[in-house]
Amino acid sequence: MTLTQLDLTALLDALPQDAVITDPDRMASYLLDRANAPDGGTPAAVVRATCTEDVQAAVRFAVANGLKVVTRGAGSGLSGGATALEGCLMVSTERMREIDIDPRTRTVRVQPGLMNAEVKAEVAKEGLWYPPDPSSYEICSIGGNVATNAGGLCCVKYGVTTDYVLGLTVVLADGTAVTLGGPRIKDKAGLPLVKLFVGSEGTLGIVTEAVLKLLPAQRTPCTMVATFGKLDNATDAVAEIQRGLRPSMLEFMDKACINAVEDLTKMGLDREAEALLVIQSDESTAAAVEELATIEAICQKHHATEVFTTEDPEEGEAFVTARRMAIPAVEAKGSLLLEDVGVPLPQLSALVDGIAAIAANRQVEIAVVAHAGDGNTHPLIVFDPSDADHAARAQQAYGEVMSLAIELGGTITGEHGVGRLKKPWLGAQLGDDAMALNQRIKDALDPTGIFNPGTMFEG
Amino acid sequence: MTLTQLDLTALLDALPQDAVITDPDRMASYLLDRANAPDGGTPAAVVRATCTEDVQAAVRFAVANGLKVVTRGAGSGLSGGATALEGCLMVSTERMREIDIDPRTRTVRVQPGLMNAEVKAEVAKEGLWYPPDPSSYEICSIGGNVATNAGGLCCVKYGVTTDYVLGLTVVLADGTAVTLGGPRIKDKAGLPLVKLFVGSEGTLGIVTEAVLKLLPAQRTPCTMVATFGKLDNATDAVAEIQRGLRPSMLEFMDKACINAVEDLTKMGLDREAEALLVIQSDESTAAAVEELATIEAICQKHHATEVFTTEDPEEGEAFVTARRMAIPAVEAKGSLLLEDVGVPLPQLSALVDGIAAIAANRQVEIAVVAHAGDGNTHPLIVFDPSDADHAARAQQAYGEVMSLAIELGGTITGEHGVGRLKKPWLGAQLGDDAMALNQRIKDALDPTGIFNPGTMFEG
Repeated sequence: MTLTQLDLTALLDALPQDAVITDPDRMASYLLDRANAPDGGTPAAVVRATCTEDVQAAVRFAVANGLKVVTRGAGSGLSGGATALEGCLMVSTERMREIDIDPRTRTVRVQPGLMNAEVKAEVAKEGLWYPPDPSSYEICSIGGNVATNAGGLCCVKYGVTTDYVLGLTVVLADGTAVTLGGPRIKDKAGLPLVKLFVGSEGTLGIVTEAVLKLLPAQRTPCTMVATFGKLDNATDAVAEIQRGLRPSMLEFMDKACINAVEDLTKMGLDREAEALLVIQSDESTAAAVEELATIEAICQKHHATEVFTTEDPEEGEAFVTARRMAIPAVEAKGSLLLEDVGVPLPQLSALVDGIAAIAANRQVEIAVVAHAGDGNTHPLIVFDPSDADHAARAQQAYGEVMSLAIELGGTITGEHGVGRLKKPWLGAQLGDDAMALNQRIKDALDPTGIFNPGTMFEG
Repeated sequence: MTLTQLDLTALLDALPQDAVITDPDRMASYLLDRANAPDGGTPAAVVRATCTEDVQAAVRFAVANGLKVVTRGAGSGLSGGATALEGCLMVSTERMREIDIDPRTRTVRVQPGLMNAEVKAEVAKEGLWYPPDPSSYEICSIGGNVATNAGGLCCVKYGVTTDYVLGLTVVLADGTAVTLGGPRIKDKAGLPLVKLFVGSEGTLGIVTEAVLKLLPAQRTPCTMVATFGKLDNATDAVAEIQRGLRPSMLEFMDKACINAVEDLTKMGLDREAEALLVIQSDESTAAAVEELATIEAICQKHHATEVFTTEDPEEGEAFVTARRMAIPAVEAKGSLLLEDVGVPLPQLSALVDGIAAIAANRQVEIAVVAHAGDGNTHPLIVFDPSDADHAARAQQAYGEVMSLAIELGGTITGEHGVGRLKKPWLGAQLGDDAMALNQRIKDALDPTGIFNPGTMFEG
């Protein structure tokens, strides 16, 4: 359907002024997420919703006019799950920014358009903490976090987004808005439908409100940085640490990441190291010192070349910031194909070694940064998009890394979502029966397939 | 269908010897769970499965013969979710007791028939910990825990069953066995179907295997017991504790529970106290002592009549055991209707006061024991089943307590499940749209309604 054929009157009438964008120049910033999926298009209109009712109106208009609906948070997605499709209705949640903290129930009610960092900052004013912390926390929306079941650095101890979602309001494929769960820590009434929507990547409905569980403020963590001359030594240390301890952070950078970060920061990272771990303990000070001493002993046993520990929060934060900068630092070297593969922890060495082999074979650079304690890695495939052969080899490597993860009993995505980019590999991981079960749920909730076609499911 | 009409040959041929029970005397112990739901019946047969394939054979036989299928773990359920139906096929998981611990991934693969306590004990041998701990942990199966998303005492800090389920094998309504998830800490590939089955109470499929996440062994906790002369003082203290602290246990008993436990144990509990809290901290010793000192100050502020703290694990465990004994101790006084209502924490006082009003109005005794830190209470309605009028008043109170919880923004069930007994109140809590959504998922996965009809959904 082209714009000239589509009568937007009913949509414009149902929504606040300025909620509907059709100007191609203004729509340009709504077309892609950070994955830059190649198969997108131009939407019929972008709806900048302000409330649940706006989203309902948008969905009803889409149903009445046979349009597909793609939901967009902050557009920071890394798997193409918020890619505009030709002639679709794009629902942006960027203006849905209300927040209501209830310290008595230790919960917060949020609209989806707030940034993760904004939610953290607001609840911190009440001495509370929302743990999930994607590296992109300053530029990713809480709605997108819910849609992808986002993870982050503290997840190794504190879990992922779904562990903090107590309630949701969701607009369904017929425009109904349903409220599920609420500010109750334990609630077993009915099927666990809240959990079903967390991580559904906009394919089952549109989340317009969420009730999130909060924790008391985290203790100031102590930080350790350890470097290794061999990759396997680092991954072996990670496995042994996780065998019996609970650090609040256990992150990994390989040599390429270390050097990319050092190029930007000049903070004195060891450019010769093959691997660097950033580890934190948020136990009470005495216990944290003890925990890090145990971890140091494990690192030494696995031939760490240097181990540095600090109780100074600013010094510690500098290393965490360095870790958070790894992806943008590598991105500065060229275009990226960004992976999110995870494996059971004992396979971490095999995964990292296998990635190096793929890189050598395809003659592409693959830098690896990882939430190592979770076995969740982000191989970053660097390529020059103007070199067709290079780009093609990068694309081949992209698939081979996912296939390797599957072979090792792992997953093609730990926290970014399947989106459009990883969909071709989903069946190989899940198998036919689980794929059929996914489709059955999709068909039950979105029988005409209006929500985000091509993401996770066939379009 | 009666037994004489049903040809069991195909079932007997497909299963190991001794797997099928049809003798009414032997079937007698498979008819009810601890809820003693009044609307049960006699099954056509009981299948004592040993593996996934046995369960598949049972489901396929049920489909071919138009039988309903009810799954039974240890029969410790408190809401009637494992009640035999007239002419149904009862699938018992009691013989499915394999366990395979992988300390390297900090996970354990279990069959559903193991007791929760057995799983805990086995993983403890590896220095690992499976947190969820229903009071009934010695007599409840891990499969039942998964089916009801069971909670327990440590959940106030460590979450409920769903937070520990990484993977499941489930036999679906057509006899297909599908494996979802696995020993991967983070896995975002596809819809979160593992989570959908945890808490589905045997209505969507039969869980035949689970992969559970483990933690390193818990530190030995320090314990505090505080008594109060007024109920509201205790609930106010709970609310203030939870506002800023993370005790690893925060349990509540009212006067009736205290006295029932004291009758059995003669351990010297204060019979005049209106409320008793059992609180634990599992921080490192210095931090635990500090945390409990803060909690003591809060209790004192709220007029605690006595506060006792111990670092001695045996002494502490004695109080926890007293708390665990509350339900059996009250049960010794008469038959019980056992509630599981939860409210947002600021409503805990209103709930407890309202329950007292219902008890006075209906002239029944209602003792209250609670996982107070979660706002999850177990009002225990004591009645004499031989007194029809008394029993009827108890039944009225049972409904009124659930209605009260709903009015207070709470839930009819925090951790026991809806089962058959609470189904009539489910709609009042969830509302029509959420009920319809539940039904849509049920219809998608079990289109002919063979799984556990009458539990959670209409039969």
